[in-house]
Amino acid sequence: MAAVARPSGRRPGDSGTREAIQRAAARQFAELGYDRTSLRRIAAEAGVDPALVTHFFGSKQQLFVTVAELPFDPAAALPHLLTDETGAGERLARFLVGVLESEQGRRRMTGLVRAAASEPTAAAMVRELVETKLIGALAKELGADQPALRASLAGSQVVGLVTARYIVGVEPLASTDPETVIAAIAPVLQHYLTEPLE
Amino acid sequence: MAAVARPSGRRPGDSGTREAIQRAAARQFAELGYDRTSLRRIAAEAGVDPALVTHFFGSKQQLFVTVAELPFDPAAALPHLLTDETGAGERLARFLVGVLESEQGRRRMTGLVRAAASEPTAAAMVRELVETKLIGALAKELGADQPALRASLAGSQVVGLVTARYIVGVEPLASTDPETVIAAIAPVLQHYLTEPLE
Repeated sequence: MAAVARPSGRRPGDSGTREAIQRAAARQFAELGYDRTSLRRIAAEAGVDPALVTHFFGSKQQLFVTVAELPFDPAAALPHLLTDETGAGERLARFLVGVLESEQGRRRMTGLVRAAASEPTAAAMVRELVETKLIGALAKELGADQPALRASLAGSQVVGLVTARYIVGVEPLASTDPETVIAAIAPVLQHYLTEPLE
Repeated sequence: MAAVARPSGRRPGDSGTREAIQRAAARQFAELGYDRTSLRRIAAEAGVDPALVTHFFGSKQQLFVTVAELPFDPAAALPHLLTDETGAGERLARFLVGVLESEQGRRRMTGLVRAAASEPTAAAMVRELVETKLIGALAKELGADQPALRASLAGSQVVGLVTARYIVGVEPLASTDPETVIAAIAPVLQHYLTEPLE
């Protein structure tokens, strides 16, 4: 490998190097969006040579896939959210808004939605991620008809909330307190999860 | 002005030149997103010198503002949609899905949402556009409490539908027939427009 360490002192063999690159990548994808994030800037923030980023992770797309994870484990979270039918919408709303009100959760969720909305390759990756890990897990837990359609409808409201409140900042939704937002969207998620769709 | 016509024959004085540039810009912003659209490519598609685009429209941001319009006139459309309280959600759902199922409507709406999600400057412009022209008009027609919050909540579901069904293509929502989508989101828009939020 031709990559050499920068003056900051990180060497290719450092056990923290991969982690530093991933941290820098996650932050830049979330804050700058997919298009404006570059391997060069990620390398600079991590204090390594750009060739090292390519050596470890390949392309920008592959690095995005590596760091583009949901800020929670759906398989672990969802059974607790869906323990009974009538409160599912409220618990799901409270859980998701809670994630989005934390700094790390908001960064990851807005990064995912931003990338999916602006970059076709990223959109395909996020769709796979969401369908398999979040919507797939939701649909599995649901007892109503058309669980996959219900899950993607609920997902559309979540994506819309992320975009309007946390990315674009549409007022007054953006500055409304979290409890009011939870109360407003809970019946919507409940409708999509369990009530007749037609 | 130093700009010269290209072999395709358009000259700076052509009455159709501005229109050709705007058509090319609208198409490219919608299909490529804000970041990857360039004045050079817009000029190439319109068959004019890039300097002519700058002469007429200034920066990429200014050109975006010029062509970033809703594919309908909210002030003309909304009074008909909101003639009575109980059917407002269903009529609004039918109207918006109808717009999104037309090629031109889909292009404009996805272009707006894509730009807003990936580019902070575009986000600010779209927020202004939506708050003034769509959400503002909606709020004005609503008789319930907190009309501005209700309008931005309804807007979040619309943005989420545009993203999930028309941009990212989350299945099975993306391939569900329009009537089923209308039936599924109508009660949600009705909830946001007129029902108690807490």
